[in-house]
Amino acid sequence: MSDSFTLSFRPEISLTTVGEQLTLKFAAHHFTLDNPKPGLRSALEHLQHSNLTVTQLTDLVMEADGVENGLSFETELQKLIHLGWICHSVLPLATAMPIMENYQLVAPVFDGEQPFTLSRFAFLHQENQQFVLESPLSKAKIILLDWRATALIAKLAQLDSSFTFETLADSLIDAEIGRSLMQLLMATEMIALKVESKALSQWQFHNLLFHRQTRSNRFDDPHKMQIPRFDDHGKFPIVKPPMSDRVISLEKPDLQELLYSDISLTAAIESRLSIREYDDQPITLHQLGEFLYRCARVKEVYTLDEDMMNIGECTRRPYPAGGALYELEIYPVINRCRGLDAGLYHYQPLSHTLSAIADDNPEVEALMFDAWKATGMQDVPQVLLIITARFGRLFWKYHGIGYGLILKHIGVLYQTFYLVATAMKLAPSAIGAGNSEQFGNIAHLNPDEEASVGEFILGSIKQNNNQPSTDN
Amino acid sequence: MSDSFTLSFRPEISLTTVGEQLTLKFAAHHFTLDNPKPGLRSALEHLQHSNLTVTQLTDLVMEADGVENGLSFETELQKLIHLGWICHSVLPLATAMPIMENYQLVAPVFDGEQPFTLSRFAFLHQENQQFVLESPLSKAKIILLDWRATALIAKLAQLDSSFTFETLADSLIDAEIGRSLMQLLMATEMIALKVESKALSQWQFHNLLFHRQTRSNRFDDPHKMQIPRFDDHGKFPIVKPPMSDRVISLEKPDLQELLYSDISLTAAIESRLSIREYDDQPITLHQLGEFLYRCARVKEVYTLDEDMMNIGECTRRPYPAGGALYELEIYPVINRCRGLDAGLYHYQPLSHTLSAIADDNPEVEALMFDAWKATGMQDVPQVLLIITARFGRLFWKYHGIGYGLILKHIGVLYQTFYLVATAMKLAPSAIGAGNSEQFGNIAHLNPDEEASVGEFILGSIKQNNNQPSTDN
Repeated sequence: MSDSFTLSFRPEISLTTVGEQLTLKFAAHHFTLDNPKPGLRSALEHLQHSNLTVTQLTDLVMEADGVENGLSFETELQKLIHLGWICHSVLPLATAMPIMENYQLVAPVFDGEQPFTLSRFAFLHQENQQFVLESPLSKAKIILLDWRATALIAKLAQLDSSFTFETLADSLIDAEIGRSLMQLLMATEMIALKVESKALSQWQFHNLLFHRQTRSNRFDDPHKMQIPRFDDHGKFPIVKPPMSDRVISLEKPDLQELLYSDISLTAAIESRLSIREYDDQPITLHQLGEFLYRCARVKEVYTLDEDMMNIGECTRRPYPAGGALYELEIYPVINRCRGLDAGLYHYQPLSHTLSAIADDNPEVEALMFDAWKATGMQDVPQVLLIITARFGRLFWKYHGIGYGLILKHIGVLYQTFYLVATAMKLAPSAIGAGNSEQFGNIAHLNPDEEASVGEFILGSIKQNNNQPSTDN
Repeated sequence: MSDSFTLSFRPEISLTTVGEQLTLKFAAHHFTLDNPKPGLRSALEHLQHSNLTVTQLTDLVMEADGVENGLSFETELQKLIHLGWICHSVLPLATAMPIMENYQLVAPVFDGEQPFTLSRFAFLHQENQQFVLESPLSKAKIILLDWRATALIAKLAQLDSSFTFETLADSLIDAEIGRSLMQLLMATEMIALKVESKALSQWQFHNLLFHRQTRSNRFDDPHKMQIPRFDDHGKFPIVKPPMSDRVISLEKPDLQELLYSDISLTAAIESRLSIREYDDQPITLHQLGEFLYRCARVKEVYTLDEDMMNIGECTRRPYPAGGALYELEIYPVINRCRGLDAGLYHYQPLSHTLSAIADDNPEVEALMFDAWKATGMQDVPQVLLIITARFGRLFWKYHGIGYGLILKHIGVLYQTFYLVATAMKLAPSAIGAGNSEQFGNIAHLNPDEEASVGEFILGSIKQNNNQPSTDN
């Protein structure tokens, strides 16, 4: 452990003394020490109220409690560091605070000669009126206490890797403190010391950030300890109100009949294919109605017996969804469909109707054109299903994992679409990419409330077409 | 349009003159001007080589070409701005470069008295040795040319909203230039001028960044114009090599028989439920084998006739996957399964076998404990299926949308799991959250190459249990 850094408890930790008992507490965890020796007690108090180095803290324990206790203090301190209870600072510039468990901080030897550059995964942002440096490669976040620390980081970002610390040195920061800050940035992986591995080089920043953010257990998630509560029923009801007064009723298939006459699950799974070539005779409104009914209608509206989260009404639908909140909406864009004019529609899953939003126009055609481009420019799709999420139905409960959950729901719906289309002898294909802004403008959506997150195309199957496509 | 900023073409734009023709080119787009007047020609050359304000540019055209041409130049310039071809600078501090179309930049009136704070969505990061300020709320990225600009932003981040520009002023930056930089930060939505809407306040930074990054058409995507090529077959083959020499053969169901005897697709979809209570008689190895075979085996290995992307061997499996690259792996964690010891296994979908990775131990039990906690602590799961992605099979082709695609695939697999479990009368449930680091340590995965991205639980169905659960 280097003496470049001073140590302190993270601010959430409380240290309380009751009689001879001293208790350390952080979130749901605590340690109680019975009758701690004076040196140990003093060291813990210093960790809470001041900033000393490891050597200073250990010396303090050794002097008061003896050499053996000093050594065991150092061991115990390492355990607290591993738990993520200890911050490391380079004052007055910056403090590194652990954001997850299994933490360690080893200061590298720094001779000022190594080549280095700011990691392309490191990012600075404002959080609760603090300027914070984070990275999905790091288990710490660094709170920048002084704008001069930011200035040093700005310089690091603009250097090519042949520059060294000496070229950075200037009158702004004391050289010794600057050196310690560099060590802190290296120890927390904010500075890249070596060339990226092939595996890491394939990650784009937003992908890695999202992955680490949704798949790890961060200390600083403010929502973790509370039961979430839904308060936005007015803005995000179970289904969207009709989006226009031009309403088209849809066919309801005879489900009782289909329970027996439909192809088997195995037949649907085993024969499913992505098909992007269509028959000249297009899909019919009747088929579109049956398809939407079987995939996405509201089967039932109910309320929970115990409703601790104030969810209110819930719906059941044919596909599963986290928390039964059903945030996804389906907007059919019609190019060719017998019985239905070309244009943009919204599917109302409770009344099982379509609301006409826009007639065929260049903007609507542009949506279709983009879908056609994204699928390799085979036949122009007959029907494009644009799927949006109403974020407010989900985020209040799932916070950080909310967006990831939406994408999983999109996948769930895709496979439901695929299998039902297969059973109905329609040509189905998911699409990999889309443009939310373009669709949001046409459908007049507030992009923070609702935006498109997936696309799927559908059409009539070509006679004699059963060639598998590349995209399986 | 304010005169606080100077204008220039984005650096990728070329301006070429052939005879009397002048051509402007950016990516796949170009404009050709026949015999442009001297003032216009001069203004365009200034846009490429120097930095003038709108007023300066317009004056220049007016003086040489007359007033009418000066006015129409201003109109045409607005169109170029809208296309995202024009950068706005506050020299020597910063340049705002559009990252997408439908761009506009309107400098707000800035009297130094408004309250403001750095948006919590704005972030600074290193990109190709430049320090860049971006935000998912902005259509520009701001290249910070001087560390003093960063210092100003650091101060903005640490202010509470009652501070004004006057409190920021100091000797580092000329007051007039500082003011213009503030206007640039406001015009590009890096500074939050008003209180967040309720809708926006529910977005966490990583969610909004990911959404905007994967659902918009950015100019600065370096991969857009190339045909991607797969070169990492050695590290990311179609299936993982056996992860141990302790191999367990699995049951293969009679698919021909199931094609007819299986329940109908409609029956599977309509009766599917999330079930998290199990019978005392656990699931059997026979059932687990049938389940994995029906959901996830390799049906066929093939190569493409035309293989422009050097994909090599491909596989077909029962569920669809983008590009047929099949990056997902399934790791069954066994708690109770008749015929199979508790422990951690890997499913090999080509040989339809399990490889034993770890016996029952506290780490493996911790995985099961976490799954149990995440699903509301009903019965302890009999089988936990942890799904990983081998990122390198996908990222070379799908780059920015790769991680989003993986999550959609997880959803596709979930619904396949749900329906097959329903047909087999097993109790299925997806899980919303998991910890990738913990699993990666046990399975010895390099987290940049492969990490867990989803979890699903499975067990024997309780006799007389057909109560729906909350999570639908």
